[in-house]
Amino acid sequence: MPRFALKVEYHGAPFAGWQRQKDQPSVQGAIEDALARLEPGPHTIAAAGRTDTGVHGLGQVAHCDMVKDWDPFRLSEALNFHLKPAPVAIVDCARAEDDWHARFSAVERQYLFRILIRRAPATHDAGQVWQLNHDLDAGSMQEAANHLIGQHDFTTFRSSICQAASPLKTLDELRIERVQGFSGPEIHFHVRARSFLHNQVRSFVGTLERVGAGAWSPEDVKSALEAEDRAACGPVCPGHGLYLARVGYPENPFEVA
Amino acid sequence: MPRFALKVEYHGAPFAGWQRQKDQPSVQGAIEDALARLEPGPHTIAAAGRTDTGVHGLGQVAHCDMVKDWDPFRLSEALNFHLKPAPVAIVDCARAEDDWHARFSAVERQYLFRILIRRAPATHDAGQVWQLNHDLDAGSMQEAANHLIGQHDFTTFRSSICQAASPLKTLDELRIERVQGFSGPEIHFHVRARSFLHNQVRSFVGTLERVGAGAWSPEDVKSALEAEDRAACGPVCPGHGLYLARVGYPENPFEVA
Repeated sequence: MPRFALKVEYHGAPFAGWQRQKDQPSVQGAIEDALARLEPGPHTIAAAGRTDTGVHGLGQVAHCDMVKDWDPFRLSEALNFHLKPAPVAIVDCARAEDDWHARFSAVERQYLFRILIRRAPATHDAGQVWQLNHDLDAGSMQEAANHLIGQHDFTTFRSSICQAASPLKTLDELRIERVQGFSGPEIHFHVRARSFLHNQVRSFVGTLERVGAGAWSPEDVKSALEAEDRAACGPVCPGHGLYLARVGYPENPFEVA
Repeated sequence: MPRFALKVEYHGAPFAGWQRQKDQPSVQGAIEDALARLEPGPHTIAAAGRTDTGVHGLGQVAHCDMVKDWDPFRLSEALNFHLKPAPVAIVDCARAEDDWHARFSAVERQYLFRILIRRAPATHDAGQVWQLNHDLDAGSMQEAANHLIGQHDFTTFRSSICQAASPLKTLDELRIERVQGFSGPEIHFHVRARSFLHNQVRSFVGTLERVGAGAWSPEDVKSALEAEDRAACGPVCPGHGLYLARVGYPENPFEVA
């Protein structure tokens, strides 16, 4: 059966996360249902990152196996037709090798987290940012974030239900920038690693927000990391500011030779 | 009765435009209902621009008259509380002179129109852009737009139900830029004048799109303008890419001395 790589964009609000659930809408379920309209199922697709409830996809990557040798462009067009009106779009599609795997072949994940700083409720960006009333000091947050970069035991920043075999991970990038958004000033967190523990990015952002607000010092984050204790973590921030931005592979599956 | 200036932001999708309607939700109705929760009504507010169905507000300005001499910040906070969960927010509020009028005191209106160019359906920006499958030549659109700048009889670009006394208007700015948006390349139209005819911006954008797509030449737009005939206009584009961005007054009502 020919295998296809899919680059998937989605708004997380209407979904109980990526993973198919029995009684709740999921992104995986929406795409598998659309696939079943093209070829009788059941279909089971795999994705690079199993995002949580409310978390968005910008560059999520998944793969599916089909009976017919579809033209990739026609496959993406047909899927987008059947996905409507769900806020899920196949933004790229390519033929992949039979042993290529959206999750296990991935060597890098990149997340974006958006904080909007303003008092009045967001209108156009509602559900797409974590909104705060108070300003944040990006410089002190970056100073704290620098303690997290590199290889560490990230037990402090790991959900208690995390299923990863080891809390040891290497964080390649945690870059914080202030940008002028459509609705006001935003703080963007760019976070990149080979792989992440469950709730790791949201534990980082929730903790760093405490630094930006002046309640924690950058050194407090270093101590929290070194404690290797979940209880040392700051509050975990909400998921609706989080975006799976990009998945990296040894060779870009969408760059057709 | 003390008068207050309100700067209003809203997502146009759930509303049949700004103006209060008998049986349909409107932005004016949402704000008047919120005001009635603060002081018994009826309340009638006036706005600088009566936006159409689906059109968004970024810097709409309105005014209201209250019995109590509210602290402006508390008034905006109370309104935002009662406006929830409607996508309407009071982003600024200030005490105004009794003879200051949100509509009649305004001397300038600025609109933004967003076109998103991509094939896959928009997810995060759905309902906030006019989405096109084909690319547009911003240079030839700007060349065509330059014919429209200045004082002209804009009968060609005026809705047949427009109630303005005269089709003579002065267009101060029509600037077209290409920007990289969150979901792909966008074309932004920045349009500024003292006042506009009904559907004027959407008639401009729909006609200029034909130039950008190569179906019309920039000179065709000049001929259409000179025809002073509604039948010479290109297609009127949809409203959900349009934003009332800013309203200008001789003195900024929100800059407290």
